[in-house]
Amino acid sequence: MPVLLAKESDVDVLVIGAGPAGLMAASSLAKAGVNVRIIDQRPNKVAAGQADGLQPRTLEVFQSYGLLHHFEEQGNQLHMVAFYNPSSKGGVERTGRVQAINASTARYPFEITLHQGAIEAIFLDFLASFGVQVERPVIPTSMQLSADEKELKDPQSHPVKVTLQNLDAKSGQPDTEIVHAKYVIGADGAHSWVRKALGISMEGEQSDYIWGVLDMVPETDFPDIRNKSAIHSNNGSCMVIPREGDKIRLYIQLTDTDAVNPLTGRVDKEKMSAEKLLQVAKKSFYPYTIQPKEVEWWTIYGIGQRVASKFSANERVFIAGDACHTHSPKGGQGMNASMIDTHNLTWKIAHVLRGWADMSLLKTYEYERRKYAQDLIYFDKTFSALFSEKPASEENQGGVTHEQFLEAFLSFGLFTSGIGIHYAPSAIVNTKHQSHASNLIIGQRILPSVFIRAADARPFEIQDLIPSDARFKVLVFAGDITEVSQMRRLRVLGEKLGKPEHFYNKFGGKEPSAAFDLITISSSKKEQVDATDFPEVFRPHLNNILLDDEDMHARVAKGTGYDTYGIDRARGAVVVVRPDGYVGMVAPFEDVADIDQYFSSFMTV
Amino acid sequence: MPVLLAKESDVDVLVIGAGPAGLMAASSLAKAGVNVRIIDQRPNKVAAGQADGLQPRTLEVFQSYGLLHHFEEQGNQLHMVAFYNPSSKGGVERTGRVQAINASTARYPFEITLHQGAIEAIFLDFLASFGVQVERPVIPTSMQLSADEKELKDPQSHPVKVTLQNLDAKSGQPDTEIVHAKYVIGADGAHSWVRKALGISMEGEQSDYIWGVLDMVPETDFPDIRNKSAIHSNNGSCMVIPREGDKIRLYIQLTDTDAVNPLTGRVDKEKMSAEKLLQVAKKSFYPYTIQPKEVEWWTIYGIGQRVASKFSANERVFIAGDACHTHSPKGGQGMNASMIDTHNLTWKIAHVLRGWADMSLLKTYEYERRKYAQDLIYFDKTFSALFSEKPASEENQGGVTHEQFLEAFLSFGLFTSGIGIHYAPSAIVNTKHQSHASNLIIGQRILPSVFIRAADARPFEIQDLIPSDARFKVLVFAGDITEVSQMRRLRVLGEKLGKPEHFYNKFGGKEPSAAFDLITISSSKKEQVDATDFPEVFRPHLNNILLDDEDMHARVAKGTGYDTYGIDRARGAVVVVRPDGYVGMVAPFEDVADIDQYFSSFMTV
Repeated sequence: MPVLLAKESDVDVLVIGAGPAGLMAASSLAKAGVNVRIIDQRPNKVAAGQADGLQPRTLEVFQSYGLLHHFEEQGNQLHMVAFYNPSSKGGVERTGRVQAINASTARYPFEITLHQGAIEAIFLDFLASFGVQVERPVIPTSMQLSADEKELKDPQSHPVKVTLQNLDAKSGQPDTEIVHAKYVIGADGAHSWVRKALGISMEGEQSDYIWGVLDMVPETDFPDIRNKSAIHSNNGSCMVIPREGDKIRLYIQLTDTDAVNPLTGRVDKEKMSAEKLLQVAKKSFYPYTIQPKEVEWWTIYGIGQRVASKFSANERVFIAGDACHTHSPKGGQGMNASMIDTHNLTWKIAHVLRGWADMSLLKTYEYERRKYAQDLIYFDKTFSALFSEKPASEENQGGVTHEQFLEAFLSFGLFTSGIGIHYAPSAIVNTKHQSHASNLIIGQRILPSVFIRAADARPFEIQDLIPSDARFKVLVFAGDITEVSQMRRLRVLGEKLGKPEHFYNKFGGKEPSAAFDLITISSSKKEQVDATDFPEVFRPHLNNILLDDEDMHARVAKGTGYDTYGIDRARGAVVVVRPDGYVGMVAPFEDVADIDQYFSSFMTV
Repeated sequence: MPVLLAKESDVDVLVIGAGPAGLMAASSLAKAGVNVRIIDQRPNKVAAGQADGLQPRTLEVFQSYGLLHHFEEQGNQLHMVAFYNPSSKGGVERTGRVQAINASTARYPFEITLHQGAIEAIFLDFLASFGVQVERPVIPTSMQLSADEKELKDPQSHPVKVTLQNLDAKSGQPDTEIVHAKYVIGADGAHSWVRKALGISMEGEQSDYIWGVLDMVPETDFPDIRNKSAIHSNNGSCMVIPREGDKIRLYIQLTDTDAVNPLTGRVDKEKMSAEKLLQVAKKSFYPYTIQPKEVEWWTIYGIGQRVASKFSANERVFIAGDACHTHSPKGGQGMNASMIDTHNLTWKIAHVLRGWADMSLLKTYEYERRKYAQDLIYFDKTFSALFSEKPASEENQGGVTHEQFLEAFLSFGLFTSGIGIHYAPSAIVNTKHQSHASNLIIGQRILPSVFIRAADARPFEIQDLIPSDARFKVLVFAGDITEVSQMRRLRVLGEKLGKPEHFYNKFGGKEPSAAFDLITISSSKKEQVDATDFPEVFRPHLNNILLDDEDMHARVAKGTGYDTYGIDRARGAVVVVRPDGYVGMVAPFEDVADIDQYFSSFMTV
C-alpha cells in the first residue's frame, strides 16, 4: 500500500465540538474576523432531545449578536412557575405560582425553551454567513502542545499540533490532516477528548439521584401544563418544562429499583422505556391525568456534579462547556453556562490575535468561568437535593415544605437567570471607582436602560448600541452640559482623549474608533441641547451622542438612566464596558489616568 | 412568416404593476393561498428615489404580515419634527420641535423611511416565499371585460381577457400571451394603462406649485438634519426627510422661473440639475450650510391632486394606488395609501374566490377607499398650500405663521399617520352596538392592547394574535367569569356558537376555526382562573384564552385592555374584527342574531 502523507495546515483557532459551547465559540470568533475552524464527530446536527432552556442573560447575549429574534420566533416562553405539593385529599394540589424569572433587571424576564437542534441550526446559519461550516464527522486523534517557552510566549505562533481524522472519507481509508493551531478550544462535551488529552481531572462526585427525561406532546387536564411546574409528590418528584409548539419535557424522579442494574450498580437505560417513565410520572400527576399524543425522545441519567481542575493548558488549549462542568439538567443551566463560557473567552482570543492585548488576558477566562462553574455546582447540589427529597407531609414532618422550596427557587433567581453573574476583580474588572456609578456593579453585565439619540430623539436600549463586536465600549456619561462648569470638564476630558499618552489614542492607534466605541450620554434634555453642541471628539458619528431623556411619547425612554446606574446627573462619569457586555471599570472625568492604567495592564501599544 | 399562436392561460387574479400597491396585492393574495400572477413593465426593480415614507398604520399592517422586522432593521425612524421660520437676524431659525407622530394610539409612534427599492425587495422576497415571481418586463396590450351578465355574476368565471406582451422575448418577436382572469388589479401608477383601458377619468386639477426632490448624503451644520424639518424661509420652503444610513431627501420649492419652460408653459426637467436644486435649497437653509457628499437621485414635479371617478369596472377589474389618486409626495402618504388600498381589497377577493362571500362584498372596496382618497386630496391641498405659501414676516403680515403651520400639522396627525382612518357604515361596518365597546371605534383599526395568555401568562399584543390571514376574528370579551351569572351568560353564548343556525357554524362550516379565529379574553385575573375553566367551544386551542391582567412583571401587560376598549369588565361583549384589522361590529352576548345578520349580509353558506 502506498504511504499517504497527511495534509498539513495552519489555523488561528481550532474549535473541537459543535454543540452550544463550540458553536458560540466559532460564531463569535468568525464574527470578530478571526480565522477559525470547527469540527464535530457527529455526522449530523442534533435532531431531538438534549438541552433546551435559555436563560435571560443568555437571551441578552444572543441579542448582542443580533440573533435573538430567531429564538423569539421559534421558541416557547416561560413566564410563570407553578408548585404542586401533596394534597390532604391525596395526590397533589397547586400550592402557589410565581414569576419564572426572579431578576428584576432582566431585559427579557422569561426563559425560552427550544430544542437543541433548532438552537444549533440558528448558529450554523450564523456561522455560514461568515463562510464557516462545521466539518463533520471529524475527530481529533492526537494533540501536542509545544514545550518551547519562546514559542508559547509568541501569541502568533502555532504551538498546538492536532491530528484530525475525517470519518467520512470516501477512499475507505480515513482522511488524516495535521492542523497547527495558535489556539484550540475543546468544547467536546462531558466526555471531552481534549480534557483527557490534557490530563485535566474532574473534581466532584456522583449523587444518588436518578432521573428520567421524556419529551412529548401531552393530552392532559393538568392546568399548568404550559407553565414550568415543580410537582413534589409522595410518589416522587416531577418537573414540567413546556417547549415550542405543544411539546413538553418531563423530568421524572426515579428510584434505584426503577433504573439501576443490580448486577452492575449503575444506571441502566435498558431497564427503562418511555412507557415505564410515563407510569412513574402519572403517579406524580395524580389526580391529574397525562397521556402522550406523541413521544419525541427519552433518556435517564444519574446526576454527577463536577468541575474541571483547570480550564486551560498554557492559555493555548482551553476547555469550555460540559467539558469543564457537569451537573443536573433540571435547573435549565447547562447550555447557558456553556455558551457564556465561550462568549467570555472569544473576545480575549480575538484581542490577542489582533495584537491588541497581551496573552495574560487569556488567564482571566479560567479565573472568571471556573469560579462561576463552582457556584453552579453549589446551586445544583442545593436545588437537586431539595427537589429530590420527599415533600413534607403528616407522615414525613421533616420533608421539604412548599415554603422551603419556594424560598430556594426565589433566592437562586439572580444566579439561575444569569443576570447576577459577577466576575471578581482582576486585570479587566477594576472596582476602584464603584461609587461613581453606584448601581452599575463592576463585574456584572451592564444594566439595560433606554436612552434617546440626541440627533433624532429615537429611543435605543443601550445594550443594543454595544453589541458583541469584540471591542471595548467607552461610555462617557457627560452630565449636564448646559452647566458651564460641566461643559468645561467635558472639554478637558475630550482634550485628554485626543492626546497620544492617554488610552484612547495610545491603544486605539490611528483610528481609535476602530478599537474603542465611544458613546456619549448626557443628562441634558432634548429641548436644551443638540448633538452638534458636543465637542467633536465625542461624536465620531452624530449618532454617538445620546441623552437621558424621554422619547417623544415617553413610552420607552423614561429619562431615568442616570438614576438606574447611580451616576450623578450633574457630573457624570466614564464607564468602560468589556466586549462581552460586562462593566470593566468606572472613573470620574479627572481620573483618566486610572483608565489608562486599566488598559495598560493587558493592552499592547 | 409563420403565424405564431399566442399562449392562453387562466389565472384567478392578475396584478398589473409591481410597485407598492401591486406588490402588496400579490403578496397578500399569495399569502391567502390565491392563485395570482403579477407583471411589471420595468425590467428591474426600482434602485433609487421614489416614495420612501412609511406611516404608523402601514407599519402595523406590515407587522400583521410578519414583515415589520425587515423594515425596522433597514429603515430610518422619524420621531421628531422641527420647524424653521424666518429669523429677525436674517435666514431661518428653529421655532419649535414636536413629535413626528400625533396619534396617541399608534403602536409604532414613528415614521420609517427607506428607499422604495429596499421596500420592494422585502415584498419580492415575501412573494418568492409563496413561489410567486414578478414577471417582467411584461406589458398588457389589450383588455376586454365580458359583457355577458351571467358570466359577470359567476364569481368563478374568467370574464377578463388580457393580452400580455413580454418585452424581453428572445426570438426578436414579442412573446404574446392571452390571460383569462377572474379578477384584475391595475396597480400601474399615475399613468395607469388599466385605468385608461377602462375609460375611467381622473377628477381634480393641477396646482401651481412646483417642487424639486434631491436625495443625498449631506455635510451640514444644520442641527435637525436627522429630523423631519419644515423650513419656511423667505427664499422658498424646503423639507428635510432623513433616510436610512446618513442619507436625506430634500423637497425644495421652485418658482416658475426655475422650472417652467416658457415656450411650453410646462415643468421642464431640462431646465434643472442637481446643482441648481442645491443652490435653491442653500438659500432656504441659510444661515446653516449644506453640501452633498454624494447625490443619489433628483427630479422635479408639479403637484396634481386627482382622484379616479371610479375604482373598478363591474367588480372584476380594480385600480389601486397611484392609478386612482395622485397628490404631493411631501406629506409622506403616497406609498401608504397605495398599499392600504390593496390590503383593503385582497381579503375581499380571497373571500369571494373561496366561495365564502358574495361578490357584493367587493363593492366596499371603492366605497371605503375612494372616500379615503378624497380625504387625502383634501389634506394634501390644505397642507401643500400652507407649506408653499410665503411665511409671515414684517413685510408679509398675511403670510403663514409658525403657529398656523404647527396647528395644521398636529390636527392632521391622526389622518397622516393612517391611525385615524375610519371606514363608514356598510355591509362590513355595523355601528349598531358601538356603546358596548365605546372606545373601539367601529370602522377603525383595532386599538393595540397587550393581554396575557391564560395558560402561561405570556403577554401578547392583540394585533399580533390577529394577523392578516384573510379570516375574520371573533373576539369574545368574556367578562369576569368568577361571577356565576356571567359564567352562565358565557355558557349560553357558547351554546349558541355551537348551533348550526348561528354564524359560527353556519358560515364556518365543518371546521369553524378555519373561517373564524375565535379568541376569548376574560377580565378575570390569573390568580382566579385557568384556561381550562372556560367552556370548550372557546378554546379550539388552549392558547386562545387570554386574560386582561398584568404580566408576571407588570411590564407590558397592564390589565387595562377592557378600559382601553371601553368594554364592561363584568359583562364583556363580542367584537368582530375584519381580516384587514378593522373593527367590523360589536355585540352584547344576547345579540348573536345581530352578528348572524352582519355575516349574512355578505357571506354565503
